Amino acid sequence: MIIVMKRDATPDDVTGVVERLRSIGCEAHVSEGQIQTVIGAIGDRDVISRLPWEAMPGVERAVPVVRPFKFVSRDFQPTDTVVDVGGVQVGGERFVVVAGPCAVESRDQLFRTAEAVVEAGARILRGDAFKPRTSPYSFQGLGEQGLQLLAEVRDKLGIPFVAEVLDPRDVGLVSSYADMLRVGTRNMANFTLLQEVGRQPKPVQLKRGFTATIEEWLNAAEYIYKEGNHQIVLVERGIRTFETAARNTLDITAVPVLKRLSHLPVMVDPSHSGGRRDLVLPLARAGVAAGADGIMVDVHPAPDTALVDGAQALLPDDFAELMDQVARLAAAMNRPL
Amino acid sequence: MIIVMKRDATPDDVTGVVERLRSIGCEAHVSEGQIQTVIGAIGDRDVISRLPWEAMPGVERAVPVVRPFKFVSRDFQPTDTVVDVGGVQVGGERFVVVAGPCAVESRDQLFRTAEAVVEAGARILRGDAFKPRTSPYSFQGLGEQGLQLLAEVRDKLGIPFVAEVLDPRDVGLVSSYADMLRVGTRNMANFTLLQEVGRQPKPVQLKRGFTATIEEWLNAAEYIYKEGNHQIVLVERGIRTFETAARNTLDITAVPVLKRLSHLPVMVDPSHSGGRRDLVLPLARAGVAAGADGIMVDVHPAPDTALVDGAQALLPDDFAELMDQVARLAAAMNRPL
Amino acid sequence: MIIVMKRDATPDDVTGVVERLRSIGCEAHVSEGQIQTVIGAIGDRDVISRLPWEAMPGVERAVPVVRPFKFVSRDFQPTDTVVDVGGVQVGGERFVVVAGPCAVESRDQLFRTAEAVVEAGARILRGDAFKPRTSPYSFQGLGEQGLQLLAEVRDKLGIPFVAEVLDPRDVGLVSSYADMLRVGTRNMANFTLLQEVGRQPKPVQLKRGFTATIEEWLNAAEYIYKEGNHQIVLVERGIRTFETAARNTLDITAVPVLKRLSHLPVMVDPSHSGGRRDLVLPLARAGVAAGADGIMVDVHPAPDTALVDGAQALLPDDFAELMDQVARLAAAMNRPL
Amino acid sequence: MIIVMKRDATPDDVTGVVERLRSIGCEAHVSEGQIQTVIGAIGDRDVISRLPWEAMPGVERAVPVVRPFKFVSRDFQPTDTVVDVGGVQVGGERFVVVAGPCAVESRDQLFRTAEAVVEAGARILRGDAFKPRTSPYSFQGLGEQGLQLLAEVRDKLGIPFVAEVLDPRDVGLVSSYADMLRVGTRNMANFTLLQEVGRQPKPVQLKRGFTATIEEWLNAAEYIYKEGNHQIVLVERGIRTFETAARNTLDITAVPVLKRLSHLPVMVDPSHSGGRRDLVLPLARAGVAAGADGIMVDVHPAPDTALVDGAQALLPDDFAELMDQVARLAAAMNRPL
Repeated sequence: MIIVMKRDATPDDVTGVVERLRSIGCEAHVSEGQIQTVIGAIGDRDVISRLPWEAMPGVERAVPVVRPFKFVSRDFQPTDTVVDVGGVQVGGERFVVVAGPCAVESRDQLFRTAEAVVEAGARILRGDAFKPRTSPYSFQGLGEQGLQLLAEVRDKLGIPFVAEVLDPRDVGLVSSYADMLRVGTRNMANFTLLQEVGRQPKPVQLKRGFTATIEEWLNAAEYIYKEGNHQIVLVERGIRTFETAARNTLDITAVPVLKRLSHLPVMVDPSHSGGRRDLVLPLARAGVAAGADGIMVDVHPAPDTALVDGAQALLPDDFAELMDQVARLAAAMNRPL
Repeated sequence: MIIVMKRDATPDDVTGVVERLRSIGCEAHVSEGQIQTVIGAIGDRDVISRLPWEAMPGVERAVPVVRPFKFVSRDFQPTDTVVDVGGVQVGGERFVVVAGPCAVESRDQLFRTAEAVVEAGARILRGDAFKPRTSPYSFQGLGEQGLQLLAEVRDKLGIPFVAEVLDPRDVGLVSSYADMLRVGTRNMANFTLLQEVGRQPKPVQLKRGFTATIEEWLNAAEYIYKEGNHQIVLVERGIRTFETAARNTLDITAVPVLKRLSHLPVMVDPSHSGGRRDLVLPLARAGVAAGADGIMVDVHPAPDTALVDGAQALLPDDFAELMDQVARLAAAMNRPL
Repeated sequence: MIIVMKRDATPDDVTGVVERLRSIGCEAHVSEGQIQTVIGAIGDRDVISRLPWEAMPGVERAVPVVRPFKFVSRDFQPTDTVVDVGGVQVGGERFVVVAGPCAVESRDQLFRTAEAVVEAGARILRGDAFKPRTSPYSFQGLGEQGLQLLAEVRDKLGIPFVAEVLDPRDVGLVSSYADMLRVGTRNMANFTLLQEVGRQPKPVQLKRGFTATIEEWLNAAEYIYKEGNHQIVLVERGIRTFETAARNTLDITAVPVLKRLSHLPVMVDPSHSGGRRDLVLPLARAGVAAGADGIMVDVHPAPDTALVDGAQALLPDDFAELMDQVARLAAAMNRPL
Repeated sequence: MIIVMKRDATPDDVTGVVERLRSIGCEAHVSEGQIQTVIGAIGDRDVISRLPWEAMPGVERAVPVVRPFKFVSRDFQPTDTVVDVGGVQVGGERFVVVAGPCAVESRDQLFRTAEAVVEAGARILRGDAFKPRTSPYSFQGLGEQGLQLLAEVRDKLGIPFVAEVLDPRDVGLVSSYADMLRVGTRNMANFTLLQEVGRQPKPVQLKRGFTATIEEWLNAAEYIYKEGNHQIVLVERGIRTFETAARNTLDITAVPVLKRLSHLPVMVDPSHSGGRRDLVLPLARAGVAAGADGIMVDVHPAPDTALVDGAQALLPDDFAELMDQVARLAAAMNRPL
């Protein structure tokens, strides 16, 4: 922590900070500049970061030097984490495509979609039984019945599935069916939910809050990791900006930034980011080229009847075309599909 | 709903939309412009808004005309809601100041703060027993012990209190102690929590998600209202923008916008918005002048030892000065304190 | 400048930075933390800030300690600047209201508006002859004829006026007519224009770029000041955020932040910020209460025929009501109108 | 234009809007919904969009149906524009790499860089003689001397060059030397500059304002096009968001959005977007995969001595590696380099 003093800080203010640091067992390096004094705080970062330095007399601001997350950082673990999702490796050599309907609506809809995406080469199925909706008047998902249908598909087609969980009280239920749990964008900072998914054995897909910084996102992953669950996949899905041409702005820069900061696998969701069918293919390709470990794509056999997010769902044929192009780019990146 | 067709939409595309509308019992008004055709959809808004119009062939975009929330809108109830918090009216003639420590840390800290804010004229006490923290390594609150201390203060000093709830499983516990529950900024879109606080009898303070639009915020209030709890107070607490000079950007415009859209009382939180002690007073005054029904202010007897957010807490003397200035401005707005 | 080294920086990397600092006549204070080394650079800030520290081997980031602007900072001049606009003091004891039409459209429109705002107590007239428009197909202003009409009004009614200048080649022209020049929000970072207005004798109203940070804004003011013109008034007019309920988000926090950082007077523009007539009055009041030195308000005798921004213009009667309320709040702030 | 009336609009309000539309030669289609009335305005869009509908009694808001730009839209010209830059085709079959130093600093620096980028396969040279700097105390460029050096390099190495112009008074000067002029991000909404570059014969590279929407950007291109210059290349260079992990957030979604809306070529600038050397390569690859027609990359022979933006400049060897990877991905996209 670097503590920048105000221009008019008194020698007593400086002494106050220095003594406070010593009182917690830390060292203080005082640099008197031409204009302002700066104090470097050296010692246990957790002890230092817990104190309200900016509330002390004469302090202008405190600048953290060390990032607040530990276990999910590449400093802690230099090698890439590989997450096993029902036998599929995410973060390994192969590029992984997750696909399926946004929400499970019926057996027929789910089976038709699942068969098509398996045929085209997807290796993990998506399909939600619980949906967080901005309006209380929108379709909220089929609940446990949806999970049963997903398990049935898995058993028939041999493809593992990921499903969202919204409520800490439902974690056990979803975990008993799914191969991977998802924490959605609106729950990235729902710390009680993060702790619950950290205490169950299935891997977790952690979507970025659409208004969360990368550092906040890695802190959220740290909540899960700290509870004992180290099988975490990060999913970039677009952030809220001033631009309204698409639903959100895919933060493609987040991919290389995360790869440097963390050892966790990174996926890109081109469907929820753009919110529009014609954007899915170019954004999926950009995800491959930026260095992601996989993508997650919404597919629906009849998007114009979808109960959730039909405007962004690909038809099975469009998805097959996407798989072709993704395969070509992944090959150019030396990653087989 | 207005459905704007693409320039190259075919007559069949237009017919498709019209027939889809009729099939759900709605009318279609077709306007053929010089460049594009526009279809007005007339009928039950919930039925119309549920279909994925933008996924239909030839559709460029669908523009909602009617807002998605109902019960919390001023169209539904033209008169102001007045919320009763342990005998204190919020949203009535008098301007209400809520004050207290960000987090309950100890009996001594809580009593010293509470006595000071009551003395200066605050009418509701704040103090949290559960804190949502970005980092899992930060202080997370005293839990039930904190609630017991708050109840003890209420009984001694005769001031009702508001406390945050984070987990749907804790709603009953917090509700059994507090006079008002708070849903914090990180949980504004935690729909399972919203439903739980909607099902208990105490009033609810709903903070704006720091990245939520006003419409999303009112949708969140609708979740609570729909469960039967109509005692909701909205709290503007700053939004995330590109500006980093203060922690967040207080969206003062939200106050008059909410007053027009909704009948619910509106408060401003100048402490969490600015995140800095020197900003609390001017932002509090701006809240009064913009037409808010109250403000909520962090106070701490020794901010430089605070476990949470010390940099923004006012000392008791600063708070007394704030009350003087707020009283003068409230009087100029014809609202006694 | 504080230079934070990477965790894996070598001793040679540290030596490289230290020697580079010494080579430019500066001192280096090296603090070896448990995890990372930090180097404090002490010496002439302009010399230090010019070098690309982040491009040097082993450097993670460089954190500036001292702000980049000098003359406009309160450190340079602790007392408030008072700007004289044709005899009206801005930044002194009295609160100043600037009012008038967004654009000059005709003699009749201008005179009717000017008479109304003078009658209601405005002390500076606004009215633009050159308008920057997003679309090339919109009305672009009357040009010099507009300036002649403004000068005629000033002579008849005895009220000074401010007018926008867009093009460095027009600075002399506008300066020859107007009592104050305005640099608009889209030109805040038009450095050639800033330099030109800095070289002419009339005071300058510098609007905040709607996407500029406060620091960038003060840097823009520094461009003007550095050329010799010290008569600068800053105008907060809303920033671009994700919220779309109003045209922009008035950054009311900027008022106290600027008052602490700079000695220049600060105004608030509630008209262009909200973009809607019903928001002007509450935002104007918030500006007074936050501590601004004045406000600037659009008024039009027939907004539904206005060629520019009619939706936000107040009718003369609404403006008179605004003046009443502003006067009451300014009195509560101990500032006469 | 669709005019949405307020819920409490009177029949007279509706009649007022209808008559106003007829008075300007347009038709009005009135749809009375269950809750609100909506009026479709049919006729000349420029005539309609010029009136302040939202200022009329009873009007809630006016929703434009047709976009405000014409000539740069794909509706106006369905085929791709190909821009000729001193013999290099931008927007044609081949993917184009522009590279060179951010600013021209000296003959030696420029020649060393230019030789390296030509050798690696770049086909257009970048290098600025006029630099817009946030602080007036930063290096502002070599001016005409820089242009002379660039012309000398072109003559020696046979590579055309692009250079930024900041001031409308310098357009003739830059145009007399350069093969393409650039309007930088801070000047995207400098309409007088846009008009000047629209009146000279060289092609124009128009960078996106880092806070401009795509629609505003295309309006800026329209300003140039309307003056007679149709040779415009759009350059996405990152936008300002809440995320601070990189300098800006590359809006990769803008590439496919622009390709659908406009016929103009699109480039991506991975250097200024990320602002960090380690991000240039992944962002360059993402630009190729998203469907851009080219990229523009900063290269410097000694970034740690660069006068401008050294932290993002690639060394010549890194650039050669980038060219290899870009070539592989461009081939997978069926675009030779």
